[in-house]
Amino acid sequence: MSNQPALEKVSSNRVFEGELTKYKFKSAVLGGLDAHFNLFVPLIGNDAKVPVLVYLAGLTCTEDTGAQKGGFFGVAAAQNIAILFPDTSPRGAGVPGEDADWDFGTGAGFYLDATKPEYSKHYNMATHITEELPQVITAAGIPIDFTRQSVFGHSMGGHGALTLYLASKTKQYRSASAFAPISNPTNCPWGEKAFNGYLQGGTTEALEKYDATALISKSSDPIHILIDYGTGDNFYKQGQLLPENFLKAARESGYDEFQVRVRSHDSYDHSYYFISTFASDHVHFHANFLKA
Amino acid sequence: MSNQPALEKVSSNRVFEGELTKYKFKSAVLGGLDAHFNLFVPLIGNDAKVPVLVYLAGLTCTEDTGAQKGGFFGVAAAQNIAILFPDTSPRGAGVPGEDADWDFGTGAGFYLDATKPEYSKHYNMATHITEELPQVITAAGIPIDFTRQSVFGHSMGGHGALTLYLASKTKQYRSASAFAPISNPTNCPWGEKAFNGYLQGGTTEALEKYDATALISKSSDPIHILIDYGTGDNFYKQGQLLPENFLKAARESGYDEFQVRVRSHDSYDHSYYFISTFASDHVHFHANFLKA
Repeated sequence: MSNQPALEKVSSNRVFEGELTKYKFKSAVLGGLDAHFNLFVPLIGNDAKVPVLVYLAGLTCTEDTGAQKGGFFGVAAAQNIAILFPDTSPRGAGVPGEDADWDFGTGAGFYLDATKPEYSKHYNMATHITEELPQVITAAGIPIDFTRQSVFGHSMGGHGALTLYLASKTKQYRSASAFAPISNPTNCPWGEKAFNGYLQGGTTEALEKYDATALISKSSDPIHILIDYGTGDNFYKQGQLLPENFLKAARESGYDEFQVRVRSHDSYDHSYYFISTFASDHVHFHANFLKA
Repeated sequence: MSNQPALEKVSSNRVFEGELTKYKFKSAVLGGLDAHFNLFVPLIGNDAKVPVLVYLAGLTCTEDTGAQKGGFFGVAAAQNIAILFPDTSPRGAGVPGEDADWDFGTGAGFYLDATKPEYSKHYNMATHITEELPQVITAAGIPIDFTRQSVFGHSMGGHGALTLYLASKTKQYRSASAFAPISNPTNCPWGEKAFNGYLQGGTTEALEKYDATALISKSSDPIHILIDYGTGDNFYKQGQLLPENFLKAARESGYDEFQVRVRSHDSYDHSYYFISTFASDHVHFHANFLKA
């Protein structure tokens, strides 16, 4: 751990019974760029380590979005759970075209490790989140127990949560949940664009690690997944999310509603108003497993 | 009511057990400019009118800030209370210099009616909030009971909440509360700049209607006020807020802690992280009076 980069504290805010701190550090995994993240730690009054929920945000978002708008902290403080908010992509990689579109490149890292040469130096959000952040936070002495982790996210971040959970060979996360996730990205425009842009093998390569529906089709492990989406969500209506595909594959793999629960909510949309409504449900869902 | 301007629906989001709708209309009080506001209405399942809390945001904010970051909707829905979020100033008045500073002009209307000629056509947020918005919303048939109103706000909006409450000759609001309010603006740089800019009589004129500390010094009516601020608030430390002045004047006017409660919170700052922490307290405080 002694070779971990130093964390620099950018800002700090007391919120509910906890402290939200923004850090930055030189990320080796992201090609030496500055990486920012927010970390909420409940004030537990002793040195005991707390379990952690990793929140992955959606397209165009940053490490601030979920912290500012999610409404997670009251229940997280009450449950004595930390929340880690990574960014959604490297920033300033300088790859030609990375800033041209809102749904690819900057702000749209898709929680994968790129294999195309022009992206593979910097666009490695999967390893950044699963390996680098736990290492640098632990090395800094922050009292987080990374043996008790779960993961959740929104939209592209819901895709990230489901795929990092299902693809983990080490069972890194105890549970996963998602708000309006991109659930079958090899079959939707956002996913096709991302995979064909970042991966040498395009959507075919993505089927191995980065498509939640494909992953659950091949899964037989015990799992704990909660998904919420709203019927008023325009991206759902446009076929970007496809939660039905994921649910069908889950049931065909033998998972019942206690292992994979997908809830449809009348009239709710894709916004953080929707997320904040069900924020408490999700934190409590994960608390079942994190506090066990 | 038949002469009220038509409300145009800009957007709508389901949130908790309610609906948040953004409207715009041509505001006569703001000199014919388009005015925007957000209105949260709980889904009560019948046509009964609901009481309403008016939320006034701070410098640089808009009608969206409190809606997106305040964390008010869960408890408001549970308490069956609507929340009205006005903007913080007219937009596009075209007064020379109105966009030069972040703490004066656009985004900084200070919830007063300007008397200087160059501002008096457009900068009339006091009348916009106390008279025009209730009229246009009622005329549109939205089921809000404006005989049951209370008001709260943040920073400049806390100033607005306290002064609109204390200065109302008609007892328009049943209670007022504030997060980190500018409590004695004739004695702080923000207030001096605003009053000398908007009012012909400057801070002297402001003492009559727009300084909460001056107003409570002259008050003997029964009142219900709650104020929260954090000791980690840089604007508090800089002397922009001066809640102690307000508290001292309140006690000298004979108000006890049940009529005027001012709470200091260790380490909390000026951000919406602070506001969201105490959001539930404030909504419940007002519910005592709105549901009576």
